[in-house]
Amino acid sequence: MAKEKKVEQITDMEVDFAQWYTDVCKKAELIDYSSIKGIFIYRPYGYAIWENIQHLMDAEFKKTGAENVYMPMLIPESLLQKEKDHVEGFAPECAWVTMGGSEKLEERYCIRPTSETLFCEHFRDVIQSHRDLPKMYNQWCSVLRWEKTSRPFLRHREFLWQEGHTMHATAEEAKEETEKILNVYADFCENVLAMPVTRGQKTDKEKFNGAEATYTIECMMHDRKALQAGTSHYFGDGFAKAFDITFTDKSNHRAYPHQTSWGVSTRLIGGIIMTHGDNNGLVLPPKIAPIQVIVVPVAQHKPGVLEAAAALSEKLAAAGIRVKVDDTDNSLGWKCAQWEMKGVPVRVEIGPRDIENDQCCMVRRDNREKTFVSIDSAPEAAFDLLQQVHDGLYAKALKNLQDNIYEAHSLEEAKALQEEHGGFIKTMWCESLECELRMKEEAGMSSRCMPFAQENLGDTCPICGKPAKKMIYWGVAY
Amino acid sequence: MAKEKKVEQITDMEVDFAQWYTDVCKKAELIDYSSIKGIFIYRPYGYAIWENIQHLMDAEFKKTGAENVYMPMLIPESLLQKEKDHVEGFAPECAWVTMGGSEKLEERYCIRPTSETLFCEHFRDVIQSHRDLPKMYNQWCSVLRWEKTSRPFLRHREFLWQEGHTMHATAEEAKEETEKILNVYADFCENVLAMPVTRGQKTDKEKFNGAEATYTIECMMHDRKALQAGTSHYFGDGFAKAFDITFTDKSNHRAYPHQTSWGVSTRLIGGIIMTHGDNNGLVLPPKIAPIQVIVVPVAQHKPGVLEAAAALSEKLAAAGIRVKVDDTDNSLGWKCAQWEMKGVPVRVEIGPRDIENDQCCMVRRDNREKTFVSIDSAPEAAFDLLQQVHDGLYAKALKNLQDNIYEAHSLEEAKALQEEHGGFIKTMWCESLECELRMKEEAGMSSRCMPFAQENLGDTCPICGKPAKKMIYWGVAY
Repeated sequence: MAKEKKVEQITDMEVDFAQWYTDVCKKAELIDYSSIKGIFIYRPYGYAIWENIQHLMDAEFKKTGAENVYMPMLIPESLLQKEKDHVEGFAPECAWVTMGGSEKLEERYCIRPTSETLFCEHFRDVIQSHRDLPKMYNQWCSVLRWEKTSRPFLRHREFLWQEGHTMHATAEEAKEETEKILNVYADFCENVLAMPVTRGQKTDKEKFNGAEATYTIECMMHDRKALQAGTSHYFGDGFAKAFDITFTDKSNHRAYPHQTSWGVSTRLIGGIIMTHGDNNGLVLPPKIAPIQVIVVPVAQHKPGVLEAAAALSEKLAAAGIRVKVDDTDNSLGWKCAQWEMKGVPVRVEIGPRDIENDQCCMVRRDNREKTFVSIDSAPEAAFDLLQQVHDGLYAKALKNLQDNIYEAHSLEEAKALQEEHGGFIKTMWCESLECELRMKEEAGMSSRCMPFAQENLGDTCPICGKPAKKMIYWGVAY
Repeated sequence: MAKEKKVEQITDMEVDFAQWYTDVCKKAELIDYSSIKGIFIYRPYGYAIWENIQHLMDAEFKKTGAENVYMPMLIPESLLQKEKDHVEGFAPECAWVTMGGSEKLEERYCIRPTSETLFCEHFRDVIQSHRDLPKMYNQWCSVLRWEKTSRPFLRHREFLWQEGHTMHATAEEAKEETEKILNVYADFCENVLAMPVTRGQKTDKEKFNGAEATYTIECMMHDRKALQAGTSHYFGDGFAKAFDITFTDKSNHRAYPHQTSWGVSTRLIGGIIMTHGDNNGLVLPPKIAPIQVIVVPVAQHKPGVLEAAAALSEKLAAAGIRVKVDDTDNSLGWKCAQWEMKGVPVRVEIGPRDIENDQCCMVRRDNREKTFVSIDSAPEAAFDLLQQVHDGLYAKALKNLQDNIYEAHSLEEAKALQEEHGGFIKTMWCESLECELRMKEEAGMSSRCMPFAQENLGDTCPICGKPAKKMIYWGVAY
């Protein structure tokens, strides 16, 4: 049968999760390889997911007062070097433009790996007075980081993202912005992508190059590895000083503004795949699914079937559902397998008997539950099912997260728990880099975050035995 | 008075049109210079115009069946070289990446000046059968061309655009696509941007590198220079052969598909400025204006005024108008000048006397006509005025176009007409490159297009005297 044949094409996730992941990316036609190692092609179906994410998230940013801009893709080397920690972190991963036409450039330019330096240069021009603050800018663009390894959506040399850059009159206001946006990200992951998150702060080791503090949302994938899904950084006035950005405050003194930046990328799509996918392929959260409902005619050669399918599709579209009819001449089995592979949240089957009974059959992608509904109530029923799929995906992912946070009181225990279960291992931590490095070295785990929801698991660091006040999550991350 | 002061800041367009243009770009806060020559920063107000263009145009593309994708920004040199005419045209303007991190690359990569080669490489992977056709892809991205001169919006080394790339089973179908998209562009310019266009075909000299035919829409700016506003190219199967892209047709033979590409860029914003702007600044066509209506409270310190302004603004917003209240503590005169500079199509003034009379005063940006309307009918009145502004702008621009097309029957006459009036000079043309070059050399005009709406002005080419069948437009272009 065509259906089994199709399903066999992807590796079983329990057999080889990494291969399953790559198979899904390819077979669901999300992405393709380009001729440059580590740079991928976003195919229509993959890009449509990103467009939906962009559209919904951009509206949230705008509600906070952020405005979109577009900055140059090239950064002169001298500009990148203005903030020391920043350049140290990024210079090794830069791709450098050295020739313009047939001429060697006097100064080389890197393709932006991130744009703090470009925004700062512009902020210096447009910020003079407290009346010019806050400046809350965002851009949707691609950035380039010349990394050694790559993986579809998770690590590209070139990837699509958004980067917000804001300047505020006071530290308090900037900190508030950092937190506000982290919550926008977290709410978006949970309410739109059905991906539960852990909100917390990064350690000094893991924070962004040049930031005073980095906040993060960490998600747990189906294989119990961690995915950093979005970050928000507080810079203090470090860049402002390095770039000589000042403003006249209300009491007419010169002051340095306080800065933030924040970003999410197409990595979110990797997160969606690894959070919700199964052995039949992709499973898309309804709110960002390019096709929310696929209508599959049954016995479509019989008179009236294609017409009924088209009429049903129009009815659903008119109600605001993203719907498509598969009226190709492929077999029913092949079609079902194909749209399961592509993760369409609800499949609607309609055949001669359904038409007779003035009904159709709706099938949920996540649990394959079937419901027969009358044609009249189809739009309402479809909306209900889409919400149920969202809720079902979220509940399942939340259970995976909650069931896989383990408490450890020694490095050995942490290591054993990670080896046995994966997931997040929570311990107290003395806040020293040394202990963080030991955890990496001996248990193979990086610090994920110090959750905002702190718990007191004891008084000492399980690694060095010294007093500890912070609870931290460790994990193996993508 | 603040108002006069502001207006004095921009150069009079009759005195120095080029300086007027640059002044508007800067003072309306559309764009800023970056530290790299020829690369500009799209500021929030300028970028918002582009977002509105994107949003509306993207919907038109999708109606034609086009799907969005995202291709790599880098092209390996060997890939760029696969189509000879193409590489000859673009290689001299490429910026080259030669270093990745600290390592010299084995092959250098150019930053895409356009992406035909990347799309072709991908098409080879995804096109096997006639069932895979047509493929109609589009991407919104930035491209880079290392040109010597630059001008805000009109010529950037890096600029934002969209590039459509399509593959079809037959030449007819590809030609139809080329034409269909040119009409999408033309209708968009006229119906959305209020910019009348001339539709036609480019000469061989002016066509796109590697294309068989290039179609264009040419607009006339206020200073009677021409602006090429969008182009659509028919490639035949030239790239398909160079890239070895084949498909199995319905009769089971291998065949080469036929290709098109098409693009518009942020140049359109330059066109808007130079078509509609005046000595008070920018004048925006209402459909893409980031702010369609600005509400300016009069005597705002008086009780109830700010509240009434806010209530009016909410009423307009609820009706679907993009509206903003200027409740800053700037003077009324300054505010009016400021929003005129920014080209907001309709200004609404509301003060104590208006509140008493349950009315407000609406002022058109294009002709400063004032209308008093009741608060109740404000949304309807605003929609009417926005449509009137659109129609007024279009009519004025159409008159400028129609009044400035001059017929010439000798090279000398063409030259004299251009020198006296500017505009488009129409003549017959023998279709030889030689005559085209002479027109450039001796009269300083390039060929703009051979309009689809041909007229018979005679039987001979006014340049060489040989038989001529084509009517052509000449002009001085941006």
